[in-house]
Amino acid sequence: MSIVVNTGDDDIFYGLHVSPDIDTVTYTLAGVVNRTLGYGRENDSHATLEALDRFYGPHWFTLGDRDLATHIYRTERMRAGARLSQVTAEIARALGVRAEVMPMSDDQVRTFVKLRGRAPLAFQQYFVRGRARGIVERIEIRGARAAGPLPAALRAIGESAAVIMAPSNPFVSLGPILALRGVRTLLHRIRPHVAAISPIVGGKTIKGPADKMLRGLGMPASALAVARLYQDIAGTFVIDNADRALAPAIEKLGMRAAVTDTIMTTPEKAARLADVVLRALPV
Amino acid sequence: MSIVVNTGDDDIFYGLHVSPDIDTVTYTLAGVVNRTLGYGRENDSHATLEALDRFYGPHWFTLGDRDLATHIYRTERMRAGARLSQVTAEIARALGVRAEVMPMSDDQVRTFVKLRGRAPLAFQQYFVRGRARGIVERIEIRGARAAGPLPAALRAIGESAAVIMAPSNPFVSLGPILALRGVRTLLHRIRPHVAAISPIVGGKTIKGPADKMLRGLGMPASALAVARLYQDIAGTFVIDNADRALAPAIEKLGMRAAVTDTIMTTPEKAARLADVVLRALPV
Repeated sequence: MSIVVNTGDDDIFYGLHVSPDIDTVTYTLAGVVNRTLGYGRENDSHATLEALDRFYGPHWFTLGDRDLATHIYRTERMRAGARLSQVTAEIARALGVRAEVMPMSDDQVRTFVKLRGRAPLAFQQYFVRGRARGIVERIEIRGARAAGPLPAALRAIGESAAVIMAPSNPFVSLGPILALRGVRTLLHRIRPHVAAISPIVGGKTIKGPADKMLRGLGMPASALAVARLYQDIAGTFVIDNADRALAPAIEKLGMRAAVTDTIMTTPEKAARLADVVLRALPV
Repeated sequence: MSIVVNTGDDDIFYGLHVSPDIDTVTYTLAGVVNRTLGYGRENDSHATLEALDRFYGPHWFTLGDRDLATHIYRTERMRAGARLSQVTAEIARALGVRAEVMPMSDDQVRTFVKLRGRAPLAFQQYFVRGRARGIVERIEIRGARAAGPLPAALRAIGESAAVIMAPSNPFVSLGPILALRGVRTLLHRIRPHVAAISPIVGGKTIKGPADKMLRGLGMPASALAVARLYQDIAGTFVIDNADRALAPAIEKLGMRAAVTDTIMTTPEKAARLADVVLRALPV
């Protein structure tokens, strides 16, 4: 299994390169993620962060002691010339992850969020510091056009019998990946092999600001609106049982609609969802 | 009070700039030093270090979580262009230290130890990793000739009514400072204001390998041998009561000999020693 991960959320804290999405994926696969928070490492402490507060003032981005080791390692390796993809693989291996975790690109891409009445904010400033408040007027994926998608990621996508687009935020999680040169074209070509899972269930997101963003950007907060965003690149669209009434409208977009329980509250439910999605693909 | 500190022991661990001597001085003055170890911070934990072991393999240099914050801050500031002296002052201030803690130089100087039958080792490799084992044949203070001593340090030394050379290792702690351009000349000029305290008591060091180094370098492990090293730069030499028999020989070197209890087991004893030394100076 290969997982291509958004790096538009990456940021520098205390001079350390933090890749929140990569780390969440890696920690989850390694079984060391903090399942209460959904990010960071389980049973982590915050002694370093508290000591950093003496130098930098109160923190707004929480980094645990064990988590910091990952950022220290990543930063040191990248300063020595290693590419992010290389370091990501090293970290996954060190933590015992067997799946291939890949950044979407080795080049710098940064997601900015433009709120009404404010200058664009780097993603973590909007999401963590600003707690995702405000009306989103625009998402900017800075550097996306110049960035090259990771060749190994394109290869993995192109060669896979099944490509699953996770129920992530379509603008700030999948959006940066889709904004990279050639990604949409590739997915369009293999569209029958691609299934996207709706992050919207009953008009709301399970987690995160996707629903608010849809509304801010002038779309209804519904699974159907997300389906439209992926119409050209995903042959199958997976919606939750709660949204089964939307299936005919999705089919009208030329997508196969699959209806199931999409809410992953346990690893077992996640595995079952993956299974249903794979079986929904005509491959 | 100004303290000029050796930076020849500085090293890079995990991409972070570690200044062991500066930190020991700063933590001690801030009242947060680990008094059992004599370095690092008190009540520190090691969660980050343990997590780093997953990436780097077992560590041999111990860095606590709270201590790491100092190195992260220093590294980040220096990468942003700040000089070590500037960052040292910032760290001291953040930890509430009122004395002026100064690196001996803003330039890189690195102490190497040449052991019999081995290539020269960077100081921490010799001292911590190698536990100061082996016969010392030579000390190399690399970069000392090219390095400029910190102007503020020269100024502090030149303007002080009393300069105290701590009972530190004459080769690897005071040696790097004395190896910098102009330092010995300056001390020679103000020699009456300078008192050195012997790190050797009864033929042994209280802590560290100074006695073994003296022998390795062909000198007796005695306070008198240390006095000879400082003959031209210190007008007063302070020895422990245990060495009072050496006083006449020290006076013969043209130094005033002061005899007192030099072993600083408590802050009170340290304060008393400082008091005795200051009163021993003819100023």
